[in-house]
Amino acid sequence: MAVALAQSETVRGTTSPNPPVGAVILDADGVLVGRGATQPPGGPHAEVMALREAGERARGGTAFVTLEPCSHHGRTPPCTGALLDAGIAAVRFAVADPHPLGAGGAGVLRAAGVDVREGLLADEVAGGPLRPWLHFVRTGRPHVTWKYAVTLDGRVAAADGTSRWISGPASRAEVHAIRAAADAIVAGTGTVRADDAWLTVRDADGHLASRQPLRVVVGTGGIPENSRVLDESAETLLVRTHDPDEVLTALTERGVVDVLLEGGPTLAGAFVAAGRVDRILAYVAPSLLGAGPAALGPSGVSTITEAHRWRVEGVTMSGDDVRIAAVPLTGEGGS
Amino acid sequence: MAVALAQSETVRGTTSPNPPVGAVILDADGVLVGRGATQPPGGPHAEVMALREAGERARGGTAFVTLEPCSHHGRTPPCTGALLDAGIAAVRFAVADPHPLGAGGAGVLRAAGVDVREGLLADEVAGGPLRPWLHFVRTGRPHVTWKYAVTLDGRVAAADGTSRWISGPASRAEVHAIRAAADAIVAGTGTVRADDAWLTVRDADGHLASRQPLRVVVGTGGIPENSRVLDESAETLLVRTHDPDEVLTALTERGVVDVLLEGGPTLAGAFVAAGRVDRILAYVAPSLLGAGPAALGPSGVSTITEAHRWRVEGVTMSGDDVRIAAVPLTGEGGS
Repeated sequence: MAVALAQSETVRGTTSPNPPVGAVILDADGVLVGRGATQPPGGPHAEVMALREAGERARGGTAFVTLEPCSHHGRTPPCTGALLDAGIAAVRFAVADPHPLGAGGAGVLRAAGVDVREGLLADEVAGGPLRPWLHFVRTGRPHVTWKYAVTLDGRVAAADGTSRWISGPASRAEVHAIRAAADAIVAGTGTVRADDAWLTVRDADGHLASRQPLRVVVGTGGIPENSRVLDESAETLLVRTHDPDEVLTALTERGVVDVLLEGGPTLAGAFVAAGRVDRILAYVAPSLLGAGPAALGPSGVSTITEAHRWRVEGVTMSGDDVRIAAVPLTGEGGS
Repeated sequence: MAVALAQSETVRGTTSPNPPVGAVILDADGVLVGRGATQPPGGPHAEVMALREAGERARGGTAFVTLEPCSHHGRTPPCTGALLDAGIAAVRFAVADPHPLGAGGAGVLRAAGVDVREGLLADEVAGGPLRPWLHFVRTGRPHVTWKYAVTLDGRVAAADGTSRWISGPASRAEVHAIRAAADAIVAGTGTVRADDAWLTVRDADGHLASRQPLRVVVGTGGIPENSRVLDESAETLLVRTHDPDEVLTALTERGVVDVLLEGGPTLAGAFVAAGRVDRILAYVAPSLLGAGPAALGPSGVSTITEAHRWRVEGVTMSGDDVRIAAVPLTGEGGS
């Protein structure tokens, strides 16, 4: 299942609104004979890709899949049928399909005599590659990760507005990997005006990745025509509203499931106030400024007892920076 | 040596200007027969305390000491003499004595035929209980730890000034333990006025500890006569200056080696700007405010390239909070 999980990681950002799933086929002797992951919408699912690689060696074998195989006809035939046709004897999946159309695959397989078990690496899968999609199925809203980089004293820029680079090279590389796995990168018009933010995925040498997430600029303020975010490197959507739910609705219509919110403070404040941030990724750089703007603007809190409460999910070092991941402690923003 | 280190931890905050040292005596068969730690100034050193407990069983035994035994006559006779008189056959110490008067103990012992080795747990001791004293001997200035508690968005209080409690109970208990180990707790007049800060060591029930560090209020602004910091719970020193070096000189005259700086932003900014913060302890609480003051005020930085650079020394969870310890990356503030 760890191999299937790794497979699914490779297609994050390319499958929405479908889930990024990974699959592995072992033959009857336990030898790995096929690997696959969900192809872009309209293309084959992970099981089918893995079965193709395995061919006849799949007969009598075991399939490991990160999500319960689907049993419905969508744009592709059901995966349960493909598994049965290939003569698979056993299926192991990590996470049950919560989707009303997809669920029931396990029952179909069991009825056909397949040995089915679920739950292997369920937490890793549900908290990892499938997290945004599971959130989307449950709430009907895209999953929003708010990412920011601050100094130890909580500044996102110096007094004169300069901010390159608050975080170190390891964190910046990590952020580009996170951008690459997202469906859309969202920033406010203020950030675009102030930083001429490009909102693209680049490698360490600054070269653009071949696949780019949708760039989304939010707000009623205008941005200059020559803004980098309007160039040809990637598609850009302008959403002329301040309301987070209107933004998320517009993104849902574009098939977006996994959103990376990159600021600035005003937009982040609106999302936090509305309970529309599902995860925080804070990169805390070991430097001090003593002046300059904070990461979060007004979010409806005026006294300490009204503070938005979160739970730290993990703390790791990212080069010289501290990376803190957090999720809402309560409320519908939870994932 | 781990037992000797633990012994020294118990006397932190009570020995300055002497170092908090721990000692353990094993008899000739390797049985632990004595433990000791530095007594308050004028009292016996750790080795003497441990030898007293061991008595005649020390003969032919081994002494473990966190600091090289002293060989000079100060207010107490040299420890090398006490070890030789007791018939100790071997000495292991963690950290060599950098003090011009104290150094040379190892040589004296070796010359008398004692088997001496150094370096055991040296990093743990030098970075732990002996760190402030070693800094003091090296620089002539007390060691300053700046401690603060902030939200994930870098606020030390809400928009209305309320701040109880930003951090959780585990962090607050930890801070009282850190206060207990310090010689002095320093805050600015602004913090005393705004929060009526008490600057005392209390247990979980709010009861005052029997020993209290010196309370130090810094600044030219006045504070109300009925401020809690002026009560009888502990001694209080008023230092009417903004200059960190003048503050540290006044503290040195009082025998202070280990300083805990607790804010506010203006005072912390002055210490950071002067390179007089030797360690940061930041408690980051998993909450968001979106408004309110930051931990650090102006510290001489106007653009990002001038940022004060630090190195993260350790990150741990303190209850639900993230505790980040950092030291200066360069400069004379280093420890």
